[in-house]
Amino acid sequence: MNNELRIIAIPSIPLIKKDDKLGEIILNACRKNKIEIDENDVLVIVQKVISKAEGATVNLNDIKPSSEAIELSRKTGRDAELCQVYIDESRRILGTKGKVIITEHKLGYICTSAGVDRSNVGPRDERIVSLLPKNPDKSARDIREYIKKQTDNKIAVIISDSFGKPDREGCIGVAIGIAGIAPIEIQQKKDLFGNEKNNTIARIDELAAAASILVGQSDEKFPAVLIKGAEYTIDEQADIKKILIPQ
Amino acid sequence: MNNELRIIAIPSIPLIKKDDKLGEIILNACRKNKIEIDENDVLVIVQKVISKAEGATVNLNDIKPSSEAIELSRKTGRDAELCQVYIDESRRILGTKGKVIITEHKLGYICTSAGVDRSNVGPRDERIVSLLPKNPDKSARDIREYIKKQTDNKIAVIISDSFGKPDREGCIGVAIGIAGIAPIEIQQKKDLFGNEKNNTIARIDELAAAASILVGQSDEKFPAVLIKGAEYTIDEQADIKKILIPQ
Repeated sequence: MNNELRIIAIPSIPLIKKDDKLGEIILNACRKNKIEIDENDVLVIVQKVISKAEGATVNLNDIKPSSEAIELSRKTGRDAELCQVYIDESRRILGTKGKVIITEHKLGYICTSAGVDRSNVGPRDERIVSLLPKNPDKSARDIREYIKKQTDNKIAVIISDSFGKPDREGCIGVAIGIAGIAPIEIQQKKDLFGNEKNNTIARIDELAAAASILVGQSDEKFPAVLIKGAEYTIDEQADIKKILIPQ
Repeated sequence: MNNELRIIAIPSIPLIKKDDKLGEIILNACRKNKIEIDENDVLVIVQKVISKAEGATVNLNDIKPSSEAIELSRKTGRDAELCQVYIDESRRILGTKGKVIITEHKLGYICTSAGVDRSNVGPRDERIVSLLPKNPDKSARDIREYIKKQTDNKIAVIISDSFGKPDREGCIGVAIGIAGIAPIEIQQKKDLFGNEKNNTIARIDELAAAASILVGQSDEKFPAVLIKGAEYTIDEQADIKKILIPQ
């Protein structure tokens, strides 16, 4: 058991735009800053840059709100066009509380605003918002395979977003896509007194939360973080759905 | 903005028993292992050792279950005595799902089993369980003041526990008591395009989650973790209640 983790925010990542090759950009930034990517490192990448590279954005000027969206807008005080995007991106609207709209995203995540976000996408008057990536596990897998090809090292990749919680204030980093790491860490162990104890640990969420301490949420410009020294179970068929509890 | 965190599990902490002076034990373990405690470091300590040092444990043999506890036991398959302790430690039982009992702890945390835990407390046939500390903020404050007195450095202290979430499998480290750190981190900033953005971040939970990557949940023997390089807002009147959303 390792007793130290290093969590390194990768500097020098430029503003990401559609069709940018993120794996290549991140690897170049690591090399430029003499950050080695070693076997079993965990690379956490924020959703926003994945969405921008994959073109998962929408211009609100292109959206025509339905009557359902207009009703949601009236109830919450948010733009009707934005409400339409929330509806389009969700399986269900679970509830509202003031301006907060709680959704079940079409991929199963429980989050506010269906993961739709206006920040760091473009000047506000352009009215561009980012959506969650279409298939975050695939986004993670592609970057993992690129790093493997280039460095010969197998790492874990986590795509993270920042979600609120119903019982606690404030956002926290959460995993929305994974590659090379088990969605749930199962520890079948004896405790200090020899009692048997089976634990299930949301290690991918712990790693996403740890990375988000450095990412910052606004202008910090650290969309990718490398974690060294974390213990986790390697999973070549990692599937984020397995951590989600259907509501 | 710092771009690296170090997260160090403090070795050589012995099994904790009632009336042990935790601040002294942790500081000695740091010195023995040449781990410096610097100004603004964050010390995360797991609830279990706080509860043991403070004697926040109960012997199930001393508990006489009420009819409500017997009913909860019948419904969930758990010991009636244990169910009585859950009831005693809770404001309300919020619901059950198989063996899982979701509670609003009397201090306001939403968690399973009112934070009551049997592991690492003693041999199972002794039937001793640990409760959450009576006043986790005070527990954190006492250790913070001890470290300040001994090293002249002001640090943040977080008491953590491992909670499940209703929408995701697996447990994750969560803050249940704090000293010297704001319960919610507020970032009033402009994003990369100059748009204004106010974020509230559960930094204390991010730090608790990061620490729990190293703590392990069973026999890892790392009940205290030191985090170096984290940005946070110092708060001399830190109050964990401010992160809790009343249900």
